[in-house]
Amino acid sequence: MKVLVIGGDGYCGWATALHLSARGYDVGIVDSLVRRHWDQTLGIDTLTPIAPIHKRVTRWKELTGRELELRIGDITDYEFTRSVLAEFKPDAVVHFGEQRSAPFSMVDRNHAVLTQVNNLVGTLNLLYAIHEVSSGCHLVKLGTMGEYGTPNIDIEEGYLTVRHNGREDRLPFPKQPGSFYHLSKVHDSHNIHFACKIWELRATDLNQGVVYGVITDETARDEVLINRLDYDEIFGTALNRFCVQAAIGHPLTVYGKGGQTRGFLDIRDTVACVELAIANAASPGEFRVFNQFTEQFSVLDLALKVQQAGTELGLDVEIDHIENPRVELEEHHYQATNTELRKLGLKPHCLSEALLDSLLRVAVQYRDRVDEAQILPTVAWRR
Amino acid sequence: MKVLVIGGDGYCGWATALHLSARGYDVGIVDSLVRRHWDQTLGIDTLTPIAPIHKRVTRWKELTGRELELRIGDITDYEFTRSVLAEFKPDAVVHFGEQRSAPFSMVDRNHAVLTQVNNLVGTLNLLYAIHEVSSGCHLVKLGTMGEYGTPNIDIEEGYLTVRHNGREDRLPFPKQPGSFYHLSKVHDSHNIHFACKIWELRATDLNQGVVYGVITDETARDEVLINRLDYDEIFGTALNRFCVQAAIGHPLTVYGKGGQTRGFLDIRDTVACVELAIANAASPGEFRVFNQFTEQFSVLDLALKVQQAGTELGLDVEIDHIENPRVELEEHHYQATNTELRKLGLKPHCLSEALLDSLLRVAVQYRDRVDEAQILPTVAWRR
Repeated sequence: MKVLVIGGDGYCGWATALHLSARGYDVGIVDSLVRRHWDQTLGIDTLTPIAPIHKRVTRWKELTGRELELRIGDITDYEFTRSVLAEFKPDAVVHFGEQRSAPFSMVDRNHAVLTQVNNLVGTLNLLYAIHEVSSGCHLVKLGTMGEYGTPNIDIEEGYLTVRHNGREDRLPFPKQPGSFYHLSKVHDSHNIHFACKIWELRATDLNQGVVYGVITDETARDEVLINRLDYDEIFGTALNRFCVQAAIGHPLTVYGKGGQTRGFLDIRDTVACVELAIANAASPGEFRVFNQFTEQFSVLDLALKVQQAGTELGLDVEIDHIENPRVELEEHHYQATNTELRKLGLKPHCLSEALLDSLLRVAVQYRDRVDEAQILPTVAWRR
Repeated sequence: MKVLVIGGDGYCGWATALHLSARGYDVGIVDSLVRRHWDQTLGIDTLTPIAPIHKRVTRWKELTGRELELRIGDITDYEFTRSVLAEFKPDAVVHFGEQRSAPFSMVDRNHAVLTQVNNLVGTLNLLYAIHEVSSGCHLVKLGTMGEYGTPNIDIEEGYLTVRHNGREDRLPFPKQPGSFYHLSKVHDSHNIHFACKIWELRATDLNQGVVYGVITDETARDEVLINRLDYDEIFGTALNRFCVQAAIGHPLTVYGKGGQTRGFLDIRDTVACVELAIANAASPGEFRVFNQFTEQFSVLDLALKVQQAGTELGLDVEIDHIENPRVELEEHHYQATNTELRKLGLKPHCLSEALLDSLLRVAVQYRDRVDEAQILPTVAWRR
């Protein structure tokens, strides 16, 4: 089975490409490498020293004998996208190829427009290319739990059965995204849903929670295969950043009260979920939505867990509540469903202390590479 | 009170600009004139002979003594947009400046991407410009009833109170748009809603039905002020096109069964609704949604009404059911709420025979200008 991983040089994309390759899929990687370019322009860097993509791919071949076909190019370029699909003939396309940071999208107008146009055009191009040259191919799109926002009702998987004035319908779950980035993902979902309807495309939207961790079975095999770990204010996410802060003796920076509750998952579950989605394809015309997270925590919960695990490792961990740069509720109802991927066989890794421990150890191992200037938030939603 | 009408050279925009000017508002018109350019590239033309925008504005000044400040430029150019807002200092911006045809957006990938990028970037630019240089300005955005699609429940005005698992929330009404154009309007709605939340912008979204008619009190004053009337497959809408077909003896082209039901309104109600929205502004932070239509009809209802009115005028009117180029339900529940604008004082014009009669007379008056090759649909959703 042939799978094309768009954004296969990124945090989730690289881990997914290796996982699928190890499980016997024929994997191609498409990436524009623009994320590495953005790191340069923003003066930020991953905690872990990642190798260039060509070296990564070569090392994987040396270790496993397995080829990762590599195409450098941008899916916002339609001729490129169409020719890659026509030549590779994938059975499934996994689409991580988007600008995926909320703060990046909120820097200024340019970044908002860049994020939305980049994500929207790339996804439209994939839809048209699948329709035109890759009929039957299953699109697996990485979405985000952030599309739902924090409604005062339980969050279901993509759809909600609504009763109103004596009638009933199963409708798309109402969306309340909280940044221009999250909005771009909602736009994509609507576009994909429509394409499934008119062209009988088959698509799965994986509304992913916040991913933590860095090690997977495959990336752990060699330092040249190491995955990126972002801790900066733009691309870093809560738990990963907290571990890096703990490792260097920086107070954990909780935004506001810290009651913001979200779904989280281990990166090893990300790669497992994507494989489950591919192995159990959506039907023609079906726009299927899975909520891809394993546990819910508040941001303060996470900080307390890191503090405890850090103390056991002999680190001195403080927690700071800093002004929240975002516009979001800091205390709210949050109860989201995540049963569909479990039904397909997902065996979740839980955020146990042992796991936190290993993430903290990676942070300690590379702490000399930390640039403290990257940590504190400077991008404010209200400006 | 100063009002900037973006897209003020278009069908609804021109009529609105004159109406507001006649009612004493200081009106500025912003338009890129790209719609006239698209007509050229597509080889289509309005039934009515519209004058160049500079002549229109000059004639209005001669007749009324009232100035319409004219700025030719494209709101996808941010420097232009910001400088216009900074200089004109509007109290309200009425935003008609979008690609507004569903078939145009479905021609091919280029047209889909053009539509979505054009509409999304223009609207993002307006949001940023209002936030940066025109704080307090009320954004009145023309949306479309097509954002809702045809759910099996009654359609409310923008929001829906949902009870689920024992909890309740007022959420954005779930959207099921039926073309890449309609999708672009949904994307805009989400972006505007978010901007209201984070920047305390004030916005009104007018989810408009299908507009019919051509004559308003102001455009009727002089032939140089005449409004456009589109009957072609790309920009023409059901009732207007049926009248033109009746005038030239072409069978009325009902797509499929004709049970497709939509909200409709007279263009004289469009201009009245926009004025009501401006005169009763949204509050800071409020994203207010009004459904802007006055009556519901099925497409077949409309055809039968045109047939009857045409027969009374001595025309021989046949009705053809042709293959539906769109992907849409042809029989469905449709019950939409439209009480908010009535509460503000709207006195609807109804689609009486007298009205149909006047529209038919305009069609007959200009029937020598009709190009039959423009009428039949060639753009298919499924391709």
